[in-house]
Amino acid sequence: MTTSAYPIDTLRAELPALDWITEPHRVENLSRDFAWYSPVLERTLAGKHGDIAVRPRSEDEIRAVVGACARLAIPITLRGTGTGNYGQCTPLHGGLILDMSAYNAFLWARPGVGRAQAGIRLAAFDDAARPLGWELRWLPSTFRSATLGGLFGGGFGGAGSLRYGPLAAPGNILAVRAMTVEPEPQIIELRGPEALVMHHVYGTNGIVLELEVGLAPAHDWLEGVATFDDFDAALRFGADLGRAPGLVTKEVSFMAAPITDYFTKLGLPQGRHAVVFLAAEFCEETIAQMLAERGGTLSYRATAAEVAASRRTLLEYVWNHTTLHAFKVEKNLTYIQSAYNPSCYLEQVRTLAQRFAGEVQMHVEFLRTKEGEYSCSGLEIICTRDETRLAEIMQAYRDSGVVINNPHTCYVEEGKQNLKLNPQVLAMKQRFDPQGLLNPGKLKSWAPAQPLAQEPAHA
Amino acid sequence: MTTSAYPIDTLRAELPALDWITEPHRVENLSRDFAWYSPVLERTLAGKHGDIAVRPRSEDEIRAVVGACARLAIPITLRGTGTGNYGQCTPLHGGLILDMSAYNAFLWARPGVGRAQAGIRLAAFDDAARPLGWELRWLPSTFRSATLGGLFGGGFGGAGSLRYGPLAAPGNILAVRAMTVEPEPQIIELRGPEALVMHHVYGTNGIVLELEVGLAPAHDWLEGVATFDDFDAALRFGADLGRAPGLVTKEVSFMAAPITDYFTKLGLPQGRHAVVFLAAEFCEETIAQMLAERGGTLSYRATAAEVAASRRTLLEYVWNHTTLHAFKVEKNLTYIQSAYNPSCYLEQVRTLAQRFAGEVQMHVEFLRTKEGEYSCSGLEIICTRDETRLAEIMQAYRDSGVVINNPHTCYVEEGKQNLKLNPQVLAMKQRFDPQGLLNPGKLKSWAPAQPLAQEPAHA
Repeated sequence: MTTSAYPIDTLRAELPALDWITEPHRVENLSRDFAWYSPVLERTLAGKHGDIAVRPRSEDEIRAVVGACARLAIPITLRGTGTGNYGQCTPLHGGLILDMSAYNAFLWARPGVGRAQAGIRLAAFDDAARPLGWELRWLPSTFRSATLGGLFGGGFGGAGSLRYGPLAAPGNILAVRAMTVEPEPQIIELRGPEALVMHHVYGTNGIVLELEVGLAPAHDWLEGVATFDDFDAALRFGADLGRAPGLVTKEVSFMAAPITDYFTKLGLPQGRHAVVFLAAEFCEETIAQMLAERGGTLSYRATAAEVAASRRTLLEYVWNHTTLHAFKVEKNLTYIQSAYNPSCYLEQVRTLAQRFAGEVQMHVEFLRTKEGEYSCSGLEIICTRDETRLAEIMQAYRDSGVVINNPHTCYVEEGKQNLKLNPQVLAMKQRFDPQGLLNPGKLKSWAPAQPLAQEPAHA
Repeated sequence: MTTSAYPIDTLRAELPALDWITEPHRVENLSRDFAWYSPVLERTLAGKHGDIAVRPRSEDEIRAVVGACARLAIPITLRGTGTGNYGQCTPLHGGLILDMSAYNAFLWARPGVGRAQAGIRLAAFDDAARPLGWELRWLPSTFRSATLGGLFGGGFGGAGSLRYGPLAAPGNILAVRAMTVEPEPQIIELRGPEALVMHHVYGTNGIVLELEVGLAPAHDWLEGVATFDDFDAALRFGADLGRAPGLVTKEVSFMAAPITDYFTKLGLPQGRHAVVFLAAEFCEETIAQMLAERGGTLSYRATAAEVAASRRTLLEYVWNHTTLHAFKVEKNLTYIQSAYNPSCYLEQVRTLAQRFAGEVQMHVEFLRTKEGEYSCSGLEIICTRDETRLAEIMQAYRDSGVVINNPHTCYVEEGKQNLKLNPQVLAMKQRFDPQGLLNPGKLKSWAPAQPLAQEPAHA
């Protein structure tokens, strides 16, 4: 017997065969992600959780529970495996946690395109696609456990965005199969630009069941860390390596000293400026020639076979895993997300690194934007959790012409969308979630026809 | 009995088993390429030809003839199949034409890398590599007959440079095996940056025997022509298509009206601005979505299977084949080669197209530079063969900040090198051709220790 504001017991009684999770500590765990990176989110999301969770195994089970929630006016918050950083799976108004992680079949891969159910783990997708010669175009550092649907719901891209840009670039997401939240849920295939309207809105405007995505040719990836005495030499090497058209690179990031000192298991020299990279093994000779010309040292190197044998991959040292390694050494940290200007990113990185020396540890990921412009995005480590100072630093970034994709908010409009919400997002919500039951409160621009029937008990 | 200034008969008598070509009209044909595109080169190279040609079939045969030439002080001009445009195979001082086209074995392909003898035709290389899942990274429009050695000796890149940049980008040319011109020729493997010192110098500083090159994953390529009413809509579509990070494109070119009207066999609508492209077949849906958004029409489309069946490929309509199709309709033409500025290429294209309306037909190829900057290069059709006006137009381009890679010269320094010859080129010549016998006269900066022993009879 739960004490929810919603008719949770009725819901469960209607569908007794489903895989329900009811123990409070398990439901609380399923209501959390890695939002604790942010002091702001840690504070604002404290105590928020669902009332019950369910882990459907088939489209029929999803349809049954979604239809019941629509009839019973119970909010639904989608969840993959909870590796996000913005609290997308944390319900602001209780209700049902719809854990998609058991709905995870790999469906097919053809040249350049693959399709799977939303709950598939990214690593499982790659395990299935690689024997066919293909792999996912982008891997966040959480790829071992993160789901494809979760990445689509609240992710940007990751390793591979260097070449293929973010998920949002045309050609990366080809289609989604999505379900409406109605007493009789409909299932609709959205293709191309229409599919992207459900991207990065935290599951607020439709339930994504399957994704059809562009694939990349699979290569054997060499993993390396090049280190330098000089900040600028390292930064320029990273920028040039990631942009070099004759090299096939999947990941290039620049980490100023002392960031790689946090990577205690890699045996790197201390206090060096570093470039972490994944490149096709056949590029190694050329990279060694470039490094020799520029005075860099290859301080870590692992072939694809060595990575497979050790299960240690630098993919778990880049993007927001960099920050995670820092947290293992020092708790009084947070981070920001920044998007540098393609026309002057190196100057901006240099200037901000100098201005905030000792306070901001510079970490940028080289990538291509949605339009294909080469640039870098920052996941800078901020050496304080003071919210006032954090806000000042973010404002100083903005004043320098660097876009902040604020990771210290759980609201759709205030994060990557930067207050410029595509109006199609709301039209899609009207179409797929007319009752406003999906992750209520996250999409602030949505004005429901009528508020949720009952005030949540623990808001 | 030839009437050369060199001891040609002695040379031939020393090596009777070689495949000699002596008939004057055949030797003259083997002394020519497509330099007639240029009124300047047509005039300056008129009447220049070798005294004899030889077509060796093995490294031993090459070594034998090169050693003999060194002993007899006979100039050697290398030749592939004569598809170049700068007269690189036309000897200024007679001597031997060393036709490499029978030295053409495919050696091997591994993931991302392949190796072949210099005389291999590019199409034959791809025929051998594709069953292994790989293909050449760049194909000039002459790929059916052009050789890999010839491309290295005087080419830039071609289709594929959109993604992989020019041959000169690090990682594209991994090594060459090269022979010195000495009485006892040496064979030396040059790797990485050292190999590139023999690139685009018209065979003046070494005899390239084999090339080891980066390969690209082979895809089934869709070929298409998108047409537009509006110049700017077509130009922007081409620029955006070629840069789109989620699309796998091999070729994107923009051709202002009326250029595609020259393509009489393609059945295109007349008077339209066009974007000619090759994209992986799996990108077709996304490209159709982009075209629909931008008001373009797909006026020509052929799948990889259709291309294979018909043997008609748009690869033979782009780069300098565009100009060739124009010549089939109108003789009073020539062309220029321009390199637009990555920071403002669209503005430059628009401005110059307007300024020279009716006189310059705008044709640009989208590509990545050696450093990986996205831009475009022009192969503009010039509607006159008047050399004074041609020079004025090229100067106007330069004055607008567009680099001219002058195709109206046969001298190494005056073409793509733009008078900034890498001093390593001369050091390499000293090492590989101390007597100055390779293609004498083309590398103007080379001051031989002693002039050629005899004045050529037909200089």
